[in-house]
Amino acid sequence: MRFKLDKKVYERKKEKLWKLLRKKDLEAICLFSPTFIYNLTGFPFIPTERPVAYLLTENKESVVIPRLEKEHVGYRDVELDEVITYPDYPGEKHPMKFVEEMIMEHDLEKIGVDHDGYGSGYGYFGPTLSELIDTEIENVRLDLEKFFAVKEKEEIELIEESAKWANLALNHLMEETEPGISEIEASMRASTKASKAMIKTYGTEFEQTGMGAFPVSTGYRGQVGKESSLPHALALNKTIKEGDVLINGSGPSVGGYSSELERTWVVGEPTEKQEKYFELMIQAQDIAFDEIEAGKVFSEVDEAVRDFYEKKGIEETWRHHTGHGLGTRIHEPPYIDIGEDWLLKENMVLSVEPGIYLKDYAGFRHSDTVVVKKNGCKLLTYFPRDLENNTIEV
Amino acid sequence: MRFKLDKKVYERKKEKLWKLLRKKDLEAICLFSPTFIYNLTGFPFIPTERPVAYLLTENKESVVIPRLEKEHVGYRDVELDEVITYPDYPGEKHPMKFVEEMIMEHDLEKIGVDHDGYGSGYGYFGPTLSELIDTEIENVRLDLEKFFAVKEKEEIELIEESAKWANLALNHLMEETEPGISEIEASMRASTKASKAMIKTYGTEFEQTGMGAFPVSTGYRGQVGKESSLPHALALNKTIKEGDVLINGSGPSVGGYSSELERTWVVGEPTEKQEKYFELMIQAQDIAFDEIEAGKVFSEVDEAVRDFYEKKGIEETWRHHTGHGLGTRIHEPPYIDIGEDWLLKENMVLSVEPGIYLKDYAGFRHSDTVVVKKNGCKLLTYFPRDLENNTIEV
Repeated sequence: MRFKLDKKVYERKKEKLWKLLRKKDLEAICLFSPTFIYNLTGFPFIPTERPVAYLLTENKESVVIPRLEKEHVGYRDVELDEVITYPDYPGEKHPMKFVEEMIMEHDLEKIGVDHDGYGSGYGYFGPTLSELIDTEIENVRLDLEKFFAVKEKEEIELIEESAKWANLALNHLMEETEPGISEIEASMRASTKASKAMIKTYGTEFEQTGMGAFPVSTGYRGQVGKESSLPHALALNKTIKEGDVLINGSGPSVGGYSSELERTWVVGEPTEKQEKYFELMIQAQDIAFDEIEAGKVFSEVDEAVRDFYEKKGIEETWRHHTGHGLGTRIHEPPYIDIGEDWLLKENMVLSVEPGIYLKDYAGFRHSDTVVVKKNGCKLLTYFPRDLENNTIEV
Repeated sequence: MRFKLDKKVYERKKEKLWKLLRKKDLEAICLFSPTFIYNLTGFPFIPTERPVAYLLTENKESVVIPRLEKEHVGYRDVELDEVITYPDYPGEKHPMKFVEEMIMEHDLEKIGVDHDGYGSGYGYFGPTLSELIDTEIENVRLDLEKFFAVKEKEEIELIEESAKWANLALNHLMEETEPGISEIEASMRASTKASKAMIKTYGTEFEQTGMGAFPVSTGYRGQVGKESSLPHALALNKTIKEGDVLINGSGPSVGGYSSELERTWVVGEPTEKQEKYFELMIQAQDIAFDEIEAGKVFSEVDEAVRDFYEKKGIEETWRHHTGHGLGTRIHEPPYIDIGEDWLLKENMVLSVEPGIYLKDYAGFRHSDTVVVKKNGCKLLTYFPRDLENNTIEV
């Protein structure tokens, strides 16, 4: 198993993208999103306030990058026709001026962009692209999201590979979890063991695409005991105790692609109440699995799940929609949401994770990653879903 | 030592912000940036495609959040006058319609915003705020960046607290580092030890503000051997060997606030060449420390450092500017850059990290965090800077 995509996959993606661009009479595409640039070139870099821009024309593939990334391109074996560097941000000459020059070097009438300039949470300021160039610009971000939402076979293979490590991580996490241990301690132990297994397996082929020090991360992130009722809790160093409901997760990056695997565990013999809501959660997830198939509208899947909550009289335990797309981002469009009008297409990869949350009591959520098929879906993640196998013996 | 800011600090920050708003004739401020919202309220949440918006008027503090965050506000002891929830994104009614209603409930003539709507790398789509409301809107993001760049005393104390853990983390990392160990293995061991110490110290007061499973992260992130010459390398599972130059770092979050501490280490007896560039790096950092004081322009500091590279004839080893602001983000304005026209002000917190990088050979960079003072700067991070103490005995 290769740890990253072969160059031919990136070539294939670019060929397919050209079909889309030609249909829209675009002579080039300029990307500012680090995710889209990674999706199309495989160049992993740490996104900061320093803009990176990528330009694909009929005869040339160019990037504008900060000086500090220059040699990194070669080290990561990324092939580009032109690598333009600017000293740093904000610089005496603003990085966007380099982007302007990269584009103006070509004689283009109309280009597509993912954004009208660079944006970053690190406090970047700069002009929009349309303030700098006269070329006609069309924002095609929606088309790009739809384009990247349908995965290549090899991308799905990496997500399946991620699912294997997620399974191994949860197995370690279960071994490390017992009454009296801190949620953080258990998470660290399991993450370390799973990470060691991963680097041993891939050896020198291993390449991190993001900043985290641990190749495999797993754990509880605060969903322990009554805080399991908070879907987006944050770790609190709580001590795990008998009777707790725990929600955990893992979805390690393999070549930049992630799966999402989450399980609800009960510490010790489950109570009737715990069993009741656990089983309802399983039923809700089953409904979602059953609904997923190519050709449907996303809203239909979420509607079926919401109908179930209503039918069972548990609307007050609902906190979020059924799931979301994923790949090189841990959340991405489409969303399995009542307001999502996209069509399900073969080879879209989705998390399926309806949850049941009882305020100040506990939360129940499994999350699995599936790939959409013609007549249904195929689970990529695997770990037993039943209560017996999700009970921590004490 | 408290692990997070006291409520009175948030009150003080809001009072100060009002002075700024009144000067600009703004009757309210609407924030979409998760960082700015955290800076002003202390509410930590996982930013996703689901918008969060915060509105501060003369008599009310309101937020629009997704349903799944509702109970989390109470669990994190955040006091707000109004918590408005929308079901999910994209939803049947777009989340921005809830933001529109939150604002229109007030009779406002002119408001400030940090962005004209929500933005997210997770594929969010939505209207701008100005498309939805008639109220006059002024983008005051630059003012906000300048406002938050000057830290409160208590914020600096948290960054100092972070520096203590960074020092402890590097001490563990040095102990764990020896020829034959994988960079990832050493990083995991040290991160685990430092994290255990942190959770033991803070006990139940510990609160994570982000997603990472490890409270303290430290390690090499790929800057091992000749890859130490790549300022933004990514981990490769390289085996550390005698003769390697290593660049490491740590800057754990304490209540959301981080320091930045990085050191260059030589494995075994340093060669003359290693010593030469190590000492030049120390000199470059000393120049930056000497230049920093309230009242100067940021470009002057970077210019002095760049002059040094020129004077020593080592311009080809330059890869990035001298440093950057930090606080609740690991990079934030202002940047110690030749193009930065901001003035240095007392209580700004900065990383100081000029680096020397020799292609295919090695990189040399220490990073320290300082707070700007009237007549200089004070180092918040501490770990010996000299070569002897940064040599790994073999």
